[in-house]
Amino acid sequence: MSIIEKLQWRAAIKSFDNTKKLTPQQLNDLLTAVRLSPSGGGLQPYKIIVVETPEVREKLREASFGQAQITHSSQLIVFAAETKIDTAFVAKYIDLIAKTREIGREHLAGFEASLTNMVNNKSEEERITWAAKQAYIALGVLSAAAADLGIDTCPMEGFQPGKYDEILGLSEKGLTSVVIAAVGFRSSEDVYSKQAKVRRPVEELFIHI
Amino acid sequence: MSIIEKLQWRAAIKSFDNTKKLTPQQLNDLLTAVRLSPSGGGLQPYKIIVVETPEVREKLREASFGQAQITHSSQLIVFAAETKIDTAFVAKYIDLIAKTREIGREHLAGFEASLTNMVNNKSEEERITWAAKQAYIALGVLSAAAADLGIDTCPMEGFQPGKYDEILGLSEKGLTSVVIAAVGFRSSEDVYSKQAKVRRPVEELFIHI
Repeated sequence: MSIIEKLQWRAAIKSFDNTKKLTPQQLNDLLTAVRLSPSGGGLQPYKIIVVETPEVREKLREASFGQAQITHSSQLIVFAAETKIDTAFVAKYIDLIAKTREIGREHLAGFEASLTNMVNNKSEEERITWAAKQAYIALGVLSAAAADLGIDTCPMEGFQPGKYDEILGLSEKGLTSVVIAAVGFRSSEDVYSKQAKVRRPVEELFIHI
Repeated sequence: MSIIEKLQWRAAIKSFDNTKKLTPQQLNDLLTAVRLSPSGGGLQPYKIIVVETPEVREKLREASFGQAQITHSSQLIVFAAETKIDTAFVAKYIDLIAKTREIGREHLAGFEASLTNMVNNKSEEERITWAAKQAYIALGVLSAAAADLGIDTCPMEGFQPGKYDEILGLSEKGLTSVVIAAVGFRSSEDVYSKQAKVRRPVEELFIHI
């Protein structure tokens, strides 16, 4: 199947088969895809929480309007934005580039200045919104990569971020949850994935200039 | 190549080969992938502007700090958020579902109410931010699908949205630009794609619970 056929197959799965788990290799592939996602300046201003523990997922389900995907999927992936994106965060990233590429830090001074400037020009709220947007890119990459690998996903915004932060202990880690995705395999009883996919018509969605 | 190897190959290309153009089929595949992206409630609260015209791209380059990707790529893709996301926008989407799935509108009343509620609970600014996040998912899908198809991309936030809206006449269409991506093929002179990819270490990026 081409990537287009795989994206056609993809659907936001509401009903997962709770007997089917991702293999360690499949989970590793998915997380690797997320890790390879592009992000603004390459800063990856987020962390990815992979939740498997049933008791924790029960609590999260309560904080997600009772939706069954939270507990019936193989894993729940929580995308959490960094809340402390500052000069030190940028400096640590520049250190990582210097180390990875084995180049002197001085060659990265211009890049560091531009990133620091970008970060410092935003209010704290704007920085978190910016970080959340980068996490949404990673969610898009996760969705496409999972489809390619034949793994089902359900990206979800219907949850209570404040409660998630509390249950997962995110605030003290300098994180806040922004979007989630259940991953696993669809149940044969899933209804929506059998219905025609609804998308805005081509002539309405695209403008050619 | 697996999707992981393709995502490893992917890089934010700064130097495109301006003699190489996407075939109509390649462009169509990329746009189809974008159209298939998931979005909150399935609302797709954005439009995608595909810019090819050289004169327009020259102007956009000036509004993008002179970056060469804007004019040297095969096409420039501008993701623009809808600025009027209201009851009527939701109603039109519900009409589309009813028509696509050949079901009575009355069966969608609960879904329509929940989407209308979600939209009406946000301020105008929050709605645009929410729409922008959905566009970032589409950007993620574009990046992954392009890599799968062997097409290069450069996702970019370094541009002046206000000037883009003016040049592309977006405001009068109820749109505002939120993020862009150049698409095409890397030049053999591209520097960054030859360097080691920098990503946060696995143990720092992921938390398992």
